[in-house]
Amino acid sequence: MTRPDGRAADQLRPITITRNWQAYAEGSALIEFGETKVLCAASVTQGVPRWRKGSGLGWVTAEYSMLPRATLTRNDRESVRGKIGGRTHEISRLIGRSLRASIDLAALGENSIAIDCDVIQADGGTRTAAITGAYVALADAVSWLQSKGALAKPDPLINSVAAVSVGVIDGEPRLDLMYEEDVRAETDMNVVVTGQGEFIEVQGTAEGVPFRRDELDALLDLALAGCADLTSLQHKALA
Amino acid sequence: MTRPDGRAADQLRPITITRNWQAYAEGSALIEFGETKVLCAASVTQGVPRWRKGSGLGWVTAEYSMLPRATLTRNDRESVRGKIGGRTHEISRLIGRSLRASIDLAALGENSIAIDCDVIQADGGTRTAAITGAYVALADAVSWLQSKGALAKPDPLINSVAAVSVGVIDGEPRLDLMYEEDVRAETDMNVVVTGQGEFIEVQGTAEGVPFRRDELDALLDLALAGCADLTSLQHKALA
Amino acid sequence: MTRPDGRAADQLRPITITRNWQAYAEGSALIEFGETKVLCAASVTQGVPRWRKGSGLGWVTAEYSMLPRATLTRNDRESVRGKIGGRTHEISRLIGRSLRASIDLAALGENSIAIDCDVIQADGGTRTAAITGAYVALADAVSWLQSKGALAKPDPLINSVAAVSVGVIDGEPRLDLMYEEDVRAETDMNVVVTGQGEFIEVQGTAEGVPFRRDELDALLDLALAGCADLTSLQHKALA
Amino acid sequence: MTRPDGRAADQLRPITITRNWQAYAEGSALIEFGETKVLCAASVTQGVPRWRKGSGLGWVTAEYSMLPRATLTRNDRESVRGKIGGRTHEISRLIGRSLRASIDLAALGENSIAIDCDVIQADGGTRTAAITGAYVALADAVSWLQSKGALAKPDPLINSVAAVSVGVIDGEPRLDLMYEEDVRAETDMNVVVTGQGEFIEVQGTAEGVPFRRDELDALLDLALAGCADLTSLQHKALA
Amino acid sequence: MTRPDGRAADQLRPITITRNWQAYAEGSALIEFGETKVLCAASVTQGVPRWRKGSGLGWVTAEYSMLPRATLTRNDRESVRGKIGGRTHEISRLIGRSLRASIDLAALGENSIAIDCDVIQADGGTRTAAITGAYVALADAVSWLQSKGALAKPDPLINSVAAVSVGVIDGEPRLDLMYEEDVRAETDMNVVVTGQGEFIEVQGTAEGVPFRRDELDALLDLALAGCADLTSLQHKALA
Amino acid sequence: MTRPDGRAADQLRPITITRNWQAYAEGSALIEFGETKVLCAASVTQGVPRWRKGSGLGWVTAEYSMLPRATLTRNDRESVRGKIGGRTHEISRLIGRSLRASIDLAALGENSIAIDCDVIQADGGTRTAAITGAYVALADAVSWLQSKGALAKPDPLINSVAAVSVGVIDGEPRLDLMYEEDVRAETDMNVVVTGQGEFIEVQGTAEGVPFRRDELDALLDLALAGCADLTSLQHKALA
Repeated sequence: MTRPDGRAADQLRPITITRNWQAYAEGSALIEFGETKVLCAASVTQGVPRWRKGSGLGWVTAEYSMLPRATLTRNDRESVRGKIGGRTHEISRLIGRSLRASIDLAALGENSIAIDCDVIQADGGTRTAAITGAYVALADAVSWLQSKGALAKPDPLINSVAAVSVGVIDGEPRLDLMYEEDVRAETDMNVVVTGQGEFIEVQGTAEGVPFRRDELDALLDLALAGCADLTSLQHKALA
Repeated sequence: MTRPDGRAADQLRPITITRNWQAYAEGSALIEFGETKVLCAASVTQGVPRWRKGSGLGWVTAEYSMLPRATLTRNDRESVRGKIGGRTHEISRLIGRSLRASIDLAALGENSIAIDCDVIQADGGTRTAAITGAYVALADAVSWLQSKGALAKPDPLINSVAAVSVGVIDGEPRLDLMYEEDVRAETDMNVVVTGQGEFIEVQGTAEGVPFRRDELDALLDLALAGCADLTSLQHKALA
Repeated sequence: MTRPDGRAADQLRPITITRNWQAYAEGSALIEFGETKVLCAASVTQGVPRWRKGSGLGWVTAEYSMLPRATLTRNDRESVRGKIGGRTHEISRLIGRSLRASIDLAALGENSIAIDCDVIQADGGTRTAAITGAYVALADAVSWLQSKGALAKPDPLINSVAAVSVGVIDGEPRLDLMYEEDVRAETDMNVVVTGQGEFIEVQGTAEGVPFRRDELDALLDLALAGCADLTSLQHKALA
Repeated sequence: MTRPDGRAADQLRPITITRNWQAYAEGSALIEFGETKVLCAASVTQGVPRWRKGSGLGWVTAEYSMLPRATLTRNDRESVRGKIGGRTHEISRLIGRSLRASIDLAALGENSIAIDCDVIQADGGTRTAAITGAYVALADAVSWLQSKGALAKPDPLINSVAAVSVGVIDGEPRLDLMYEEDVRAETDMNVVVTGQGEFIEVQGTAEGVPFRRDELDALLDLALAGCADLTSLQHKALA
Repeated sequence: MTRPDGRAADQLRPITITRNWQAYAEGSALIEFGETKVLCAASVTQGVPRWRKGSGLGWVTAEYSMLPRATLTRNDRESVRGKIGGRTHEISRLIGRSLRASIDLAALGENSIAIDCDVIQADGGTRTAAITGAYVALADAVSWLQSKGALAKPDPLINSVAAVSVGVIDGEPRLDLMYEEDVRAETDMNVVVTGQGEFIEVQGTAEGVPFRRDELDALLDLALAGCADLTSLQHKALA
Repeated sequence: MTRPDGRAADQLRPITITRNWQAYAEGSALIEFGETKVLCAASVTQGVPRWRKGSGLGWVTAEYSMLPRATLTRNDRESVRGKIGGRTHEISRLIGRSLRASIDLAALGENSIAIDCDVIQADGGTRTAAITGAYVALADAVSWLQSKGALAKPDPLINSVAAVSVGVIDGEPRLDLMYEEDVRAETDMNVVVTGQGEFIEVQGTAEGVPFRRDELDALLDLALAGCADLTSLQHKALA
């Protein structure tokens, strides 16, 4: 049983994080998990949505999208179709929830941060790459706010957040699936973890065959180890 | 620490399943988890969507929706707003995936079953009630196909499927959250399980505070026990 | 000439009205005209739409919708199609106009009542059942406002309102058509009448063959008698 | 009690019908009821919608719309708003039903006629002017088909169709309301009548105050007389 | 080489401008370039869009649309399709830009003028006819504002604006193309010019074969001469 | 008078063209005009749209879009707003027309090429950068088709195509405007030119002040020279 790119079952693909990839954003990062490339940009605006005004709390949202030719064959644009698909909605919500778990919204004050995650190339794991890269963009946007004197103490960033996909292929639990593995996985799980190794989100799905408790446990072990590595890469990038 | 309705932490709300609630559907069930009421209807059509034609495989989809006044205050209709929200998309996709795990699509042949889950009253756990009720409607729709001689052997139903929500409130893991508990939960998890006690879907989300591995384990224990009870109620209803 | 269910030409189907069917609504009723079942819910909100602010007048609207499997074969959801069809618009407007004729909007004050009429099962006459049931939900919502002390004298309810369909089938005028009759009717009329027997709305349509003045007169006679019966059933339900 | 333009209560406004107003349409007419001006164009296409193919029957539809500045103040375009309003839907359906009552769809064969009714200026009664003018455009489109040898005997036109509005203002029943009267009417009725004086559609609505049977009768008398006049104007225009 | 209607290459079609064609608009004109007919209506409202409030500047916009049967075969309504096409957007923006070049928005004060250009019949050159007619409607709307005392000195109208299409057919540069020429043109250009003969907009497009600098020059010569004629017709109409 | 980046009035910004930037596209290029960066991807599919089937002709289209944070402040996604704006439509159509002028659609055969131009960073001139880069992606897609043996002789590429913006700022004609210049330009022109120096598209717009014939001529001179430089950079990139 070898993986398509020869990696060990518990090994991440080569990860690179390039900060400040879009010049105008308050924070931005191009993150690569092997051939998967996601551009994450954080945009700061003063004020919060109407339903939140006067609360003293900030707000963080995310939007996920794919360029039409990020994939092997071209996908129609959602703007052209006139509506956003269920998968896009679902992933945007997941990224937003995950990032909000990293931040103290009271310490952010009535500021909003919108994170755009645009997939430039998709080879599996785009949503987990997006979360991992979005955290870097978010951290830079928070620093930008601090450098402007817009935030009082304490630091709103309370956790770092990283995410990875894991899955069972031919009975073997594997870390960080590429597309070719993803489509063959019996079970597919996305796990979002804090820098302290606690869970923010666990989403496991049986593709065809239900999975047992021990398989779930093995996948969680892999994911925790993978996220620990991603966390240190994030810290290195932000250093 | 007592629950709002006095239940034990590992106790389901009163569950009722009323079959054939909509006269014209090939299968239908009104399922109640306490005050939560979901109407599930299965509609059979011959043939499959275009992209699946000639495959010999059937198809099962689901659509979830809420009546405007299922909730404490009225929600606008998605038809009036002109688009379906992210939450609705997400739940419809979850129900569809869960039901497809219960059925052998080759044995279903080129027939389609659409499951409509309309929430009539919402007191927490609507998506898990929907999955649990939808399985009953689906089973009746499969029986209907069999009674018409439209299916060869073997029985397409390979698993029963039930689902329940679990969560941590004030540090205590609890089964089958009502709305009042749901909004206060630190961690919220929806678990979909087969009649054999294997997982189809695990979706856990930290609401504010990340959760530890041991909390996750305690929640999974509760969910497996709850789903076992739901499975036997499904079998009783279908007997 | 016998009707499919053996009724006399001037006889209503069995009518039942079940109040408080949805626990959270300020008023709600499940109304059944034979196999036709419509769930009516009245939602009260303080204030009125912007264009009406400062007028001292209240507002009453209605929205009509069908569950996908209310009918013999499944209908696509309007939320999924992304727009509301002409028939739905037309019926929602009819229900709203009819209910506004029952209420003194000045006595209601700047409060809004939205009536949702969701058809759970459709065997003809859904719009007239909806109006008849919606009046009961509206009356309960007004009582709720009175019980909260939100209304001064006088009672905003100035008329009760009931509605019924009539039609000519094989030359015979008949009351309260079921679906099987509806599709065969040469002329089809929906009549909305106050508790005092005056008209709020008369909508007659020739299906294929134009109709004469004497046929119109016979249909109006039937409708007035049918609405008188419905009025007393409404009063009984509200007693 | 005098009318704003000094007419008798049972008198139509000056009516003019100008045929062939749009050069490319197979039939077209500009109809004027006083200051109300509606442009009606009939477009013929070979074939029928998919659901009707092979039936041997033709199809007639109508679409009603208003130019933005047909009214005293400007209305937003429905194309810009991205959806068609309920009123537009309702009127388009009414026009289509009315015209289909004038034509033998079997004699039309599998041809489609689409009637566009665009209101250029609106001073009340636009829907009834539209129906009356649309019949003229339809008759010309049928003649065009006959001149091309596309229709066998018999003539598909079986009835002429005309329509007028009537209403009660200050207790007085009046024919053919202008806008200023329309907004003050206690009861408002649109009546569609064949050339033989039989009803195709009767739509009466109480605006505020319910109406009695004798008022309904008086309005129908006025409408029948008005439509008889419109019928002879249509015949004269088509001669 | 003769033109379909026998005109000289540098000759306009017969042009007529009929003012006050829609009674309720503050300015309106029906403009005809041969068989091309466009109805232009200017609507004045006090105030400006939110993003412009407090600027002291007015605003002028335009919307272009075609009646479904303006053309040889029927076009679907954009309101029915639920979205506005690219061509419509493009032309509306062009008309708006052109008209804003004719007006001093500071002298207009915080008033808005919306120009609706509805094509009643299309035989080529609809966008240039629309601009030429819209200027007349705009001038009347400005006079209306002046007559109401709503404008201080100076006159907001600083330029008159006219537009014409030119193109190369079979190697010959021609002025004011009709539809039959338009579809055969190798190069097609729309030119918007002030009353002083300066350019507001030049849009030239190669249809198939790229064009040379000398061809461009010849087309501009034709366009300037044609617009000079249109300018004097506008002044005559407004006199 | 100096330009913000010190360039001469007739000097392009530094231009870089990076081929094969998206691994899965049949042709792709990242093009940079200074800080403006546009990703162009060409997607080949066998077959043509329905209305073109059987013609023997191929088809080339383009879609233009901006990432939300390509600009100084964030723009909402058109997919989220549910419709494409007029500017996007206009530019997509311009790019498509320009590219079709470079290709012999008969020699392409019944194949379709869709070009996606996604602006990653916007500092003025995005539409002209998009056209210039799109030509490179298109050329690579045509080579890909040739390498697959899908095209007979002759080469479908008949022209190369490049584009540049020019404008008048403070009375001075300048080449290749950056954003800061663009917003201050009195006249703004986009010019699309073949490799042989003939025009495909000329779009000049007065921003506020109309422009004279001699200004137009000076701008065209600048644009032709700039496009000649871009043409040789394209050839170098494709070598």
